[in-house]
Amino acid sequence: MSPTITAFKSSPDRGRGLARDMRVRWALEEVGQAYDVRLVTFAEMKQPAHLALHPFGQIPTYEDGDLALFESGAIVFHIAERHSGLLPDDANARARAITWMFAALSTVEPPIVDRSMATLMDRDKPWYEERLPILDSRVRDRLGQLSHHLGDTDWLDGAFSAADLMMVSVLQRLAGSGLVEAHPNLSAYIARAEARPAYRRAFDAQYAVFVAASGA
Amino acid sequence: MSPTITAFKSSPDRGRGLARDMRVRWALEEVGQAYDVRLVTFAEMKQPAHLALHPFGQIPTYEDGDLALFESGAIVFHIAERHSGLLPDDANARARAITWMFAALSTVEPPIVDRSMATLMDRDKPWYEERLPILDSRVRDRLGQLSHHLGDTDWLDGAFSAADLMMVSVLQRLAGSGLVEAHPNLSAYIARAEARPAYRRAFDAQYAVFVAASGA
Repeated sequence: MSPTITAFKSSPDRGRGLARDMRVRWALEEVGQAYDVRLVTFAEMKQPAHLALHPFGQIPTYEDGDLALFESGAIVFHIAERHSGLLPDDANARARAITWMFAALSTVEPPIVDRSMATLMDRDKPWYEERLPILDSRVRDRLGQLSHHLGDTDWLDGAFSAADLMMVSVLQRLAGSGLVEAHPNLSAYIARAEARPAYRRAFDAQYAVFVAASGA
Repeated sequence: MSPTITAFKSSPDRGRGLARDMRVRWALEEVGQAYDVRLVTFAEMKQPAHLALHPFGQIPTYEDGDLALFESGAIVFHIAERHSGLLPDDANARARAITWMFAALSTVEPPIVDRSMATLMDRDKPWYEERLPILDSRVRDRLGQLSHHLGDTDWLDGAFSAADLMMVSVLQRLAGSGLVEAHPNLSAYIARAEARPAYRRAFDAQYAVFVAASGA
């Protein structure tokens, strides 16, 4: 039996691949694991059936036999632990890759999401013009540090791993902001990841959901 | 050789146990692993020697032989993987505990840190009075969902695990806000964790640093 994940029936990102099921699809494609997708509406996400899978009423979830998980980071890690290809075999390299997974989610993503939420929800607020530079500055600090670490290497630590998958998915939310583009090595890093066949397959699969939902 | 962690030489939380080295100290105490602490100033955190350990110039870091890690979540997970007592043996229960570790850091912590940063840094801003209720509301949503999940159980999923360690450390930042206190089961959950001997030892150790730094 293939695992089943959940994804938005109608994604607010309009098929740009920013919904967090994309991370799980990408990981499953990288390791060659087939999967089923159950699409859920925003209303369904707040119903008891979905809340039993995800206490915070979000997507994605992951069901495999009698195991049910949530949180994209945890699901990607679970996939990476059970298949080869997403975490190094060497114990120290593996620990460092896991460190970068946590860094993507705990240190790099929060200021990016804060900025993204402000641009989506606070544009009409009286404080928007004054707050945006503060939010930009926090993102810039993180990107500068990340760019410095990456230097001219292809991936965060040795070969491509689940850490790069998570970090790229976090950075993609900045597309069009000009913030990533200030660091050519970060732009190249994202492009390198997006060129992976597994990424393309995952992107196309989520995009097909958007096309179907929009009746195109 | 014991591992070495870094912590603030002068913690901005004034010994309240909110700095993120506390999570690592607590995990090490839970598994009975002795450790050394190297205290760093804010200036030292931005120097090349520290940035080589932590690309984002923060604490804690973790050094054990030729392995160097950063990110409190990753370090706690590393400790939990290498010792018994912080993750269940059963594979599915272990995956669920890891899910809750990620949930603490990715879903529950960000709105709490946002609110905390606003109360520390935005009090004099013209938008503070209007934004605080929005930030409170986001925290309330998460706490309500968490309280519902916890119900009348002692811990998030079966026995105490690294998931509870991370979640409690995230919730502690709300002390004094009244937000946690609206959910007696969450208050009891935090108190239950803080009563653990390993927590007390970790708290006392970080508090001793504060007392020494303040010349008391």
